[in-house]
Amino acid sequence: MFIETIVPRIPETDALGHINNNVLSVWFDVARVPIYRFFTPDLIGDKWKLIIARTEIDFIRQIFLDGDVEIRSLVSRIGNSSFDVSQTAFQNEKVCAKCKATWLHFDFDNQKSAAIPDDIRQKLKENMQASKDSQ
Amino acid sequence: MFIETIVPRIPETDALGHINNNVLSVWFDVARVPIYRFFTPDLIGDKWKLIIARTEIDFIRQIFLDGDVEIRSLVSRIGNSSFDVSQTAFQNEKVCAKCKATWLHFDFDNQKSAAIPDDIRQKLKENMQASKDSQ
Amino acid sequence: MFIETIVPRIPETDALGHINNNVLSVWFDVARVPIYRFFTPDLIGDKWKLIIARTEIDFIRQIFLDGDVEIRSLVSRIGNSSFDVSQTAFQNEKVCAKCKATWLHFDFDNQKSAAIPDDIRQKLKENMQASKDSQ
Amino acid sequence: MFIETIVPRIPETDALGHINNNVLSVWFDVARVPIYRFFTPDLIGDKWKLIIARTEIDFIRQIFLDGDVEIRSLVSRIGNSSFDVSQTAFQNEKVCAKCKATWLHFDFDNQKSAAIPDDIRQKLKENMQASKDSQ
Repeated sequence: MFIETIVPRIPETDALGHINNNVLSVWFDVARVPIYRFFTPDLIGDKWKLIIARTEIDFIRQIFLDGDVEIRSLVSRIGNSSFDVSQTAFQNEKVCAKCKATWLHFDFDNQKSAAIPDDIRQKLKENMQASKDSQ
Repeated sequence: MFIETIVPRIPETDALGHINNNVLSVWFDVARVPIYRFFTPDLIGDKWKLIIARTEIDFIRQIFLDGDVEIRSLVSRIGNSSFDVSQTAFQNEKVCAKCKATWLHFDFDNQKSAAIPDDIRQKLKENMQASKDSQ
Repeated sequence: MFIETIVPRIPETDALGHINNNVLSVWFDVARVPIYRFFTPDLIGDKWKLIIARTEIDFIRQIFLDGDVEIRSLVSRIGNSSFDVSQTAFQNEKVCAKCKATWLHFDFDNQKSAAIPDDIRQKLKENMQASKDSQ
Repeated sequence: MFIETIVPRIPETDALGHINNNVLSVWFDVARVPIYRFFTPDLIGDKWKLIIARTEIDFIRQIFLDGDVEIRSLVSRIGNSSFDVSQTAFQNEKVCAKCKATWLHFDFDNQKSAAIPDDIRQKLKENMQASKDSQ
């Protein structure tokens, strides 16, 4: 499991006085970076190998400006060319939002999906297993 | 059905050269504003009556900077206190992304969900019906 | 002079109930796109020829969510390789913010500034002149 | 002097492959939060006492995704009701951008500027002095 800490920013609030819901999409993305690095260690655009297929976000509790947000991310499914990341955002130790994102390993040169290479598959598996072990 | 046109912005691109996926969350939100106005015509924060419960976004095709994006939004379910909005984003007449968002009518004073008032329910129904008629 | 209309977005508000000040930077950028097109008509990243050198923004009046913002942009200085764009943002016909942005025509291959080509210089001059004529 | 570290985010890049220039406005804002806390320690909107008057940003070097950005902020002028914050953003120990922001202490109830209270003025002075001492 990867754990990332997000410090909410003033421009991420909205006129309702809390963090705007669209910001969660960005924060969950930020928290998936350690998994993106399995595929592209330096995050360089020219070497990018992933395409997002789907996100589902459940909004459970308001998030406020003045308090760190902790996002826990774990690989929850590994297919042939795709995988899921399941994530939970906490503020003050309460669950505020959950996200499931589906990513596709993509061959940009040939513009089609491609099997996840074995070495990366192994890293995804270790992350998934570590998550189960910690439950 | 509501149809909104979005002009992609340079800062909405990312290092992959297309529109960043998180931006879709914002655009679908922008396109739901006519429905938010059923509940709060002037969009004033103090009179706001909705809470987002869930979003699902399917990313189907890349979106590029230089071309308008059309988003079609329709009410697809009306419950007692919640409703769904189903949306599709097109660029160059091709489907690029789909979204389903679930909103909850909320009584902020008493901090609990509240039945959708009849006059607003009627507007939601008309939008849902009009969508079916146009299919 | 170029005139662009911006429709404020809910996520662009902040907890003070108005449009967050950082958003102005983006809106002024959006309103300069017709001038960017002088240099790169299709806005394609690989053909991009400009580098931003400096922005100055004066914040004069709060901007609220529910009202279009009109941004007027004019070329206010043309140098050998750089030029300035002066902009004013209005809401309800009142001046809300002013911006001056300095851009540099850049030769990305050789990583140095380059003289503005004559045909583009002519377009910048016409914009500057038209602005003076309309005053 | 306050030093804040920013981790660049993927959605903050643009199609040119670097961090979009508008993002700097947000990062400099984030780095001023310790100074905002002099006025409103918990950053609550209802207790907010500041209005931004002006920003100047000089863009000196491109900023890339994969590397922390350090922002150093110091109070550089204290007036009766206004003050300036001067900031520098570094990546890989090179200066990438500079910002000067002017803020106004504001009495929101009476909608007019107000003298900076003595206890806060003292904190601003200490920050300004500490900055000079460290040079």
